[in-house]
Amino acid sequence: MNILDVPTGSADEQAVRDARIVLGTLVEPGSRRLYELVTAHGPVEALDRLASGREGGQLAEAAALRLHGRPPAEFAARLWERSDRLGVRILTPESGEWPARLADLRHISIDGPNTIDRDTYPPQCVWLRGPHRLDDAVERSVAMVGARANTDYGAYAATELGYGLAERGWTVVSGGAYGIDAVAHRAALAAGGVTVAVLACGVDRPYPLSNNALFDQIAEEGLLISEWPPGTAPFKVRFLVRNRVIAALSRGTVLVEAAARSGARQTLRRARQLRRAAMAVPGPITSEMSVGCHEELRREPHEPVRPVATVAQVLEEVGGIGELAPVPRGADRPLDGLDPVERQLVDAVPRRGGAYAEQIAADAGVSLRTALAMLPSLALRGHLREHGGGFARPLPPGRTA
Amino acid sequence: MNILDVPTGSADEQAVRDARIVLGTLVEPGSRRLYELVTAHGPVEALDRLASGREGGQLAEAAALRLHGRPPAEFAARLWERSDRLGVRILTPESGEWPARLADLRHISIDGPNTIDRDTYPPQCVWLRGPHRLDDAVERSVAMVGARANTDYGAYAATELGYGLAERGWTVVSGGAYGIDAVAHRAALAAGGVTVAVLACGVDRPYPLSNNALFDQIAEEGLLISEWPPGTAPFKVRFLVRNRVIAALSRGTVLVEAAARSGARQTLRRARQLRRAAMAVPGPITSEMSVGCHEELRREPHEPVRPVATVAQVLEEVGGIGELAPVPRGADRPLDGLDPVERQLVDAVPRRGGAYAEQIAADAGVSLRTALAMLPSLALRGHLREHGGGFARPLPPGRTA
Repeated sequence: MNILDVPTGSADEQAVRDARIVLGTLVEPGSRRLYELVTAHGPVEALDRLASGREGGQLAEAAALRLHGRPPAEFAARLWERSDRLGVRILTPESGEWPARLADLRHISIDGPNTIDRDTYPPQCVWLRGPHRLDDAVERSVAMVGARANTDYGAYAATELGYGLAERGWTVVSGGAYGIDAVAHRAALAAGGVTVAVLACGVDRPYPLSNNALFDQIAEEGLLISEWPPGTAPFKVRFLVRNRVIAALSRGTVLVEAAARSGARQTLRRARQLRRAAMAVPGPITSEMSVGCHEELRREPHEPVRPVATVAQVLEEVGGIGELAPVPRGADRPLDGLDPVERQLVDAVPRRGGAYAEQIAADAGVSLRTALAMLPSLALRGHLREHGGGFARPLPPGRTA
Repeated sequence: MNILDVPTGSADEQAVRDARIVLGTLVEPGSRRLYELVTAHGPVEALDRLASGREGGQLAEAAALRLHGRPPAEFAARLWERSDRLGVRILTPESGEWPARLADLRHISIDGPNTIDRDTYPPQCVWLRGPHRLDDAVERSVAMVGARANTDYGAYAATELGYGLAERGWTVVSGGAYGIDAVAHRAALAAGGVTVAVLACGVDRPYPLSNNALFDQIAEEGLLISEWPPGTAPFKVRFLVRNRVIAALSRGTVLVEAAARSGARQTLRRARQLRRAAMAVPGPITSEMSVGCHEELRREPHEPVRPVATVAQVLEEVGGIGELAPVPRGADRPLDGLDPVERQLVDAVPRRGGAYAEQIAADAGVSLRTALAMLPSLALRGHLREHGGGFARPLPPGRTA
């Protein structure tokens, strides 16, 4: 079952969208029950059942409290009008620019008493501010999340990765929080790239206030998005509900810095559940703010979290075929081209004076045959020099025999 | 086939030991060909074949160069005499204190042109200085290896881990090199523990000279060991040959710091080949000296290298059953005991003034039933307080309504 394939029945497209945004406003995002209802009946009928009282239960009661007796059509009209006034667009799964990836959220719900792990279903709608199409913006995107109380090290890492990703045309998705999130957004913007802030409150009043200048810039050059309608306050639980959207929108999630307890670790968990690339930046074992990253890296092989230290390594995880990070290697060394036996022979030549092949062979532990075959070639290549019928180390540059 | 089960024929035990130490001196350690010869004929007969010229080939020729026409019995006598004079003991696989773990080295040889990867067989003998039995010393041991050009961070990590392991009665095995090796040895000694330095040269002239005071202390309180007889110079290739013994003696190997190119990474590879625990300490992605560690941590799941940040985590990898590292967790927080719905309700109560249950339920997105069931309990537990027929946030400590 795919949320994009819901039956629209005889209702026209606008009615479906109206129903979506009313449902998205009456019911806290992620609800499994609402997802089931919409899947079974379509959004219009699902809303009608909730509003008319034909549908019972906690979900209907909670929705009714918010509807407060208003006719759904009027409720929808007010939402559209308010969005227009605020310059906020609204997308539903019926919109052309709805990112298909969000549908993967229908697979990760976990039964149990914890509503945050159970109510992980796709959004009914998304409110957004900014000049980009959402689907285009996130097509090639990486989520970067982390501690609010970041260290300088974390800021450095988030800047390097965020800037480098944006420079290569990748969008940086994050949560707009203080700390690593804000650094990642700023780095992407500094590179002239696109960044998407997924908020846990209305896009008209992004939280935290101290990031207001950043949010203004994101609204102009990137995208501010939220599952909650304008005016919604950022309750704590909403950050955790929101995290699944950060993970679902992007091709992979990088945890940059995190204390042992950190909401950002939950975003990484969502990425794993969604089978997206899950990555963490290693850091000093002396830093409390890397403990969460290292704990993630210690996960068992069946739930891998990959360490990433460079943009190339991030892209290797999310980029698919053809984007393998170069393996770091040190500078070439003089003896690189020699095989172990040749190196053993060179080492067996005394540093002062010279030695005959027989002595060199004995010290190196090779046969005289081997030594006699290899020593002249080593001398030809400049690793040794011939010396009084035997062999010696090469002269230092500038000296002659 | 097990090197401990070699046929001794009619030769007595001393003849076998004599043959071992002569073979270990005539042939560079690790030789596959010598291992095959000894396995087929026993050490005494193998030596006789080499010395008498009945055995041909490169191995025999190289051995003959070193033997230089001397009778093997005389050669052996001189080795024993020299060892006695230097206070150096010699162990062979026939010795009671020979560590059984070394026999695992017969499994990791790789066919190909690289002699270092092919000649990975167990030592014929080991020379040692120090007051401990080798088997006891390495029974509970961890190898710690790393860059010579370590950073302060690496020194800190090696000290923390080396000291902590020694404090818990674990032996620290390393290579006696400048840098991380030396720091690890010193940390173990500082904790009053045992440390084993596995050298690539004679134990009478440990390399590098600058670590001489350390080597003296290790000879008094730990163990200096080598596969090479006294007087042997530390040719470069020998460090790589030696690394397999560091990995084989210990239950696991920790790479503390390493550049992209680092001999210490080869030791970690040996640990993986031996199916011992392979570990690496994460570090700042800004440090060249952690690049090698991070590359190791990026290995695919089928050849795992585990990140370790604490002694407990190292012991979890090598300690077997019952030594699981505690998972780091942050301090408890006030709302820890609340489920997501309760937290959502608390968040929905305004920070100033109060609100009625119906409003709180609507803002939280829950039914009035749920709110009415939970709000009084939240107030009883101090997360809220009753206020004018509704609910308000608790008063700050010291203030009364």
